[in-house]
Amino acid sequence: MRVFIAGGDGYLGWSLVQYLGARGHQVGAADLFLRRRWVEEMGSWSALPIASMRERLQAFKERFGEELRFWEGDLRDYGFVEALVQEFQPDAIVHLGECPSAPYSMMDVHHAVFVQTNNITTTFNLLFAMRDHRPQAHLVKLGTMGEYGTPRMDIPEGFFEVEFRGRRERLPFPRQAGSWYHWSKVHGSNNIMLACKIWKLRATDVMQGVVFGTGIDEREEDERFLTRLDFDQSFGTAVNRYCCQAVIGHPLTPFGQGRQRRGFLPLRDSMQCLTLAIENPPAGSEYRVFNQFQEVYDVTEMARKVQKAGADLGLKVEVRNLENPRLEAEEHYYNPDHQHLVDLGYKPAHDVETEMRLMIQDLMKYRARIEAKREVLIPDVRWDGRREKVRFLELVKTGNAPAG
Amino acid sequence: MRVFIAGGDGYLGWSLVQYLGARGHQVGAADLFLRRRWVEEMGSWSALPIASMRERLQAFKERFGEELRFWEGDLRDYGFVEALVQEFQPDAIVHLGECPSAPYSMMDVHHAVFVQTNNITTTFNLLFAMRDHRPQAHLVKLGTMGEYGTPRMDIPEGFFEVEFRGRRERLPFPRQAGSWYHWSKVHGSNNIMLACKIWKLRATDVMQGVVFGTGIDEREEDERFLTRLDFDQSFGTAVNRYCCQAVIGHPLTPFGQGRQRRGFLPLRDSMQCLTLAIENPPAGSEYRVFNQFQEVYDVTEMARKVQKAGADLGLKVEVRNLENPRLEAEEHYYNPDHQHLVDLGYKPAHDVETEMRLMIQDLMKYRARIEAKREVLIPDVRWDGRREKVRFLELVKTGNAPAG
Repeated sequence: MRVFIAGGDGYLGWSLVQYLGARGHQVGAADLFLRRRWVEEMGSWSALPIASMRERLQAFKERFGEELRFWEGDLRDYGFVEALVQEFQPDAIVHLGECPSAPYSMMDVHHAVFVQTNNITTTFNLLFAMRDHRPQAHLVKLGTMGEYGTPRMDIPEGFFEVEFRGRRERLPFPRQAGSWYHWSKVHGSNNIMLACKIWKLRATDVMQGVVFGTGIDEREEDERFLTRLDFDQSFGTAVNRYCCQAVIGHPLTPFGQGRQRRGFLPLRDSMQCLTLAIENPPAGSEYRVFNQFQEVYDVTEMARKVQKAGADLGLKVEVRNLENPRLEAEEHYYNPDHQHLVDLGYKPAHDVETEMRLMIQDLMKYRARIEAKREVLIPDVRWDGRREKVRFLELVKTGNAPAG
Repeated sequence: MRVFIAGGDGYLGWSLVQYLGARGHQVGAADLFLRRRWVEEMGSWSALPIASMRERLQAFKERFGEELRFWEGDLRDYGFVEALVQEFQPDAIVHLGECPSAPYSMMDVHHAVFVQTNNITTTFNLLFAMRDHRPQAHLVKLGTMGEYGTPRMDIPEGFFEVEFRGRRERLPFPRQAGSWYHWSKVHGSNNIMLACKIWKLRATDVMQGVVFGTGIDEREEDERFLTRLDFDQSFGTAVNRYCCQAVIGHPLTPFGQGRQRRGFLPLRDSMQCLTLAIENPPAGSEYRVFNQFQEVYDVTEMARKVQKAGADLGLKVEVRNLENPRLEAEEHYYNPDHQHLVDLGYKPAHDVETEMRLMIQDLMKYRARIEAKREVLIPDVRWDGRREKVRFLELVKTGNAPAG
């Protein structure tokens, strides 16, 4: 298949380029390298050293014997998007070209506006280019489990059937996101749902859990194939931050009571799942939603697992809860469905502890890079608008608090 | 109270300025006059002649003996919004400063992006300015009944309680909007809901039905107080277009089968309802949703009522259905709640036929202005992306078709 990846230079994007290349797909990608700039803006960098796109393209060519078709440009520019869709004629368009950070969106009004307008505009441009130049293509759009929030009931995959005053109806499951970023993903989901309806397009909207890890099945032992791994407060997801903390002996830092439950997913499995979606498009016009994660854990359980994986590798770290910079439920019901990808054949590659060990081993080679940016491990972007580093909590050990 | 109106030059905005002024409120308003430009872009103008803001301000001063505080500027510019909120210190902020047209948003990718990013950005700017400079203010945000779409069940006011797999929960009622514009209002509603939650703000989100009419209770017989009245495909709402059609002897034009049911509301009652919301803010931090309309009718019933009101005034017009440029259910269940405003004291001023007669009388004085732009009465913006005038339908007279 011809697969176009919007955001091919990112954490997921550069991984997917390789993974699809290894499976024999023809891959095209675009990027403006904004993610590199955003992380710099946060005072950080990738824990793994990342090659320039020029080096990456060279590595791709050496390995696969053919060019990775790459467009440098702005996905907010319709002319740019239209031209590349016309030229490449993709069978699948994977949209990883959004700004993916809740804290980044919560910094101030300018970042809130940037994240939402960037994410809405890039999605519109892809939808209109599909409509006008490649209506049979399949859009695979990266959303987030965070779109749903944490309602006190099971979370279905996108839609549910309910009764209200004696009438039953299949409805979109109500979203209750918790940041401007998470809402930007809901806005995108809503726009895509309408585009599929009125223009008969097909799309898979992927509600992805919290991804972690450095490895993918098709990675070669060549630094140019490393994908980025962030550990700053905005672009480092929970487990990725924990593992970087473990490597430099910094406490692992769940927020607040640490009982927030989330669906987690190794990067390796994310590649498997996205590929299952790409290779199994809906037959005709359809908007479908996949909840994409391996298992649900709370953020303290994940810290304990990282602690243990670290200990197996000789690293000693403690778990110390931080004041929660976010406003979110810290103890709540959470039971999301995740059947659609299993039905397509998704099988987790490893248990999470194995994946954490592999990751920590990767990161230990670059310990100095993490150490150099140690100060970014404590967040200061608060949901109430203040910008002030959070402090360590001394939790009273009750049934509700994390065990000692 | 000190009331700031974002979008004070528009159809609702200029009406509300007068209505609140007459009730003794201190009124401030901002506008960039974009609505005047958009209607020009559609090849049209207001059926009622509208004065410049300079003339309007002069008229306001002559009538009320004090200045209407007015800021000309762009609500997408945070510095502009912040400065005026700091200076005016409003008790209520009424957000009428969005682009309010479904067809305008459906024209092409650029209009889709413009409408959504404009509407999201202006709302963010008001929310952040409130948070930082006037957290006790009450935001009254104009949404639309179109946010809900037409689900096959009753529509509550914003939230409903449902059971799913044995657990009951109060959830936002799922939105199923039918245009990029309508989704922009949902995006705004979602953003405001979160802002109220994390910043303890208070807001009333007004799901307004289809407004029609030229008159408000506090209007003076001075042309400078006339508010605009649009009849082009993008900014003219159904009944306003029908009445303009009646005045020049053009057929009244329901779309498709003409059985689309909507909540309708005279402009006069919209002023009453918005004022009830403004004068009765939530006591503390709250996000509340009001469904704001007088009665539900289908668009053919409304055409028949305009036909009759016109006949009472000596105008003879036929009702002729047009091919539907939109993709929407043309016959459907529709039973939205509208209790909250009634509980606050909302009483319709007139029956709809009376309001239509008053409106037609106003418009008859400006018949030549409508005649001059006659060609804008037939739409050409289609939901499938084509730009092509729709044709008259010859409907077979069955039980489902409008009566001859």
